Amino acid sequence: MEGRLNQLVQSLKENSVDSVFITSKENVFYFTNLYAEAHERLIGAYFDQKGNQVLIVPALEKEDVKNAGWKGDTITYFDHEDPWEKLQSYIKDVGQPESLAIEKENLNVVRFEAISKLLHGTTIVDGQLMLNQLRLIKDQKEMGTLKEAAQFADFAIETALKHIQEGQTELGIIAEIEYALKKEGIRNMSFDTTVLAGKKSAAPHGTPDLTPIQKGDFVLMDLGVVHQGYCSDITRTVVLGEASQQQKEIYHTVLEAEQKAINTCEVGMRLGDIDQIPRKVIEDAGYGEYFPHRIGHGLGIDVHEFPSLASNNEDLLQEGMCFTIEPGIYVPEIGGVRIEDDVFITADGATTLTEFMKELIEL
Amino acid sequence: MEGRLNQLVQSLKENSVDSVFITSKENVFYFTNLYAEAHERLIGAYFDQKGNQVLIVPALEKEDVKNAGWKGDTITYFDHEDPWEKLQSYIKDVGQPESLAIEKENLNVVRFEAISKLLHGTTIVDGQLMLNQLRLIKDQKEMGTLKEAAQFADFAIETALKHIQEGQTELGIIAEIEYALKKEGIRNMSFDTTVLAGKKSAAPHGTPDLTPIQKGDFVLMDLGVVHQGYCSDITRTVVLGEASQQQKEIYHTVLEAEQKAINTCEVGMRLGDIDQIPRKVIEDAGYGEYFPHRIGHGLGIDVHEFPSLASNNEDLLQEGMCFTIEPGIYVPEIGGVRIEDDVFITADGATTLTEFMKELIEL
Repeated sequence: MEGRLNQLVQSLKENSVDSVFITSKENVFYFTNLYAEAHERLIGAYFDQKGNQVLIVPALEKEDVKNAGWKGDTITYFDHEDPWEKLQSYIKDVGQPESLAIEKENLNVVRFEAISKLLHGTTIVDGQLMLNQLRLIKDQKEMGTLKEAAQFADFAIETALKHIQEGQTELGIIAEIEYALKKEGIRNMSFDTTVLAGKKSAAPHGTPDLTPIQKGDFVLMDLGVVHQGYCSDITRTVVLGEASQQQKEIYHTVLEAEQKAINTCEVGMRLGDIDQIPRKVIEDAGYGEYFPHRIGHGLGIDVHEFPSLASNNEDLLQEGMCFTIEPGIYVPEIGGVRIEDDVFITADGATTLTEFMKELIEL
Repeated sequence: MEGRLNQLVQSLKENSVDSVFITSKENVFYFTNLYAEAHERLIGAYFDQKGNQVLIVPALEKEDVKNAGWKGDTITYFDHEDPWEKLQSYIKDVGQPESLAIEKENLNVVRFEAISKLLHGTTIVDGQLMLNQLRLIKDQKEMGTLKEAAQFADFAIETALKHIQEGQTELGIIAEIEYALKKEGIRNMSFDTTVLAGKKSAAPHGTPDLTPIQKGDFVLMDLGVVHQGYCSDITRTVVLGEASQQQKEIYHTVLEAEQKAINTCEVGMRLGDIDQIPRKVIEDAGYGEYFPHRIGHGLGIDVHEFPSLASNNEDLLQEGMCFTIEPGIYVPEIGGVRIEDDVFITADGATTLTEFMKELIEL
């Protein structure tokens, strides 16, 4: 944690900003180790270049702050008290900054106006990019946690496959997956578990329901867990019964694209270029128009974070980055296939964290 | 939907605001019937006093907009397009408003700045209160949906009770509850299901885990489902094994408080006063300091909405309001009891939507 806070202060200096007020659950966790869902109550962390560090939390979070091992100052408030006044008083005591970075994508307008008022005279700037960049490179401990989260995702797919059969439903499979994970101690998924069968597997935003799965259906499963604050994200697609020639062709095209994308990763390359080779595989097979999304997204405390693997990302691939690789082909009225793994970048290229088998499974 | 849009225009007139831009999932659903989770992509609805109505959505939501039965205009955009430019162009065509209401608690600063820029010259005001008020009174159809959501909550408690036994865990019970609900077609809970046993039942923010439940433990279950866009919220507390004298005393005090709170509801009374009688019951029994929260909160598309039943709410109780009644006593190191029902207000007072039995259950 100390290393992270030193980096944060360093970053403030490089960006010529005096201070930062962090309010997103993800960044509060990253810089203070407090993992808390405050809902409408304010939880925030203030840091300045001079080394002042304060967490402001509702009184009922006091014990959690202690358990998180927080070493800086703490301001607590009861529901009848105004947290902004307390924060203002602290900041005035340590010296009002000339400039303050906030998370403009996270902060709502009511809070923005409260901060602008309490720090009247301070220039407020957007610190979102600076903060996202600080979380970009994961250390060995983070990699270990991400690996464990990925193992739970593998386990979830393994569980699902035991329950895919005629008459079973999309929601029924989700029920089995999440039941087994809870028994293993996983309370939260990193997003709503998605199981889509048949034609629905081609819909980008389908909603799982109780319609029975039919023989010949693609069954697409996309899920992830939250484990010790870190997320995983896996997709596997199988066929109930025997796959048709077209299904095999689509599947093997996606699989080839996925493997080539993983193999292409090399430290120092342009991030946007990771998208090129797999997209070409899919285009060459004649399915280019059916792969409408980027090849992957960063993964960490948030299930979608930096780096984005969109083709226009000019940044370079670095050791310690973690992201998904997830090509897909979605043919309306036929069905969709997506294969997704989580990868971690080392000096040797991409290591896959999720390891569930990828050969076409016909159940 | 037409009635709601007429009321919205009426409300704009009463508040002397020309137009409103709605971005929260809940309000977009209420006024357009589109229930969509856009994540970082923009989904919004613009209405003005002149009757212009437009939904702006990502292109991949187009089908959902049609399925929602939306009759107004629709703007769709692809990921490479700027939704704000498209919105600006629409608004310029129909006439830029002098004033625009937004949801200041929902909108982040990036979006706020985008709107301020595209409608340069328009005065932007907070429409949060106006919009919350419009959802305050539920109609018969909404009551029917809320009743069904409550029935799923009853079913969840019934399911949980079948699985509470020595050696079972908090997360194990949650697994059983959500498994059974998914099999009934429920995809989402209205908040993270909470099961807390023994001393942990006294913690306001305890985290369910795999510790085995012990004989003599209170087991507190707090949960709700999302059904057709509407939420339920129920709490029941039981004892594994025989209850001690103190447990019985705490339980019966909470039960008496809860029943009196429900019975006190009468159209026209001050909302804050609903808190008085149950709080007195708990204080008279000597547990006043262990009931640290308001008696309830509004319930609807959001699991916490208007009206708040905090003691300082000066508004009056009206037919069609829907909220929770949930007194509790939480004694550190001993445990906690909360009993919570969802109620709907009719001319005759409060009707409970959740109906699971409330006599002390010793399992």
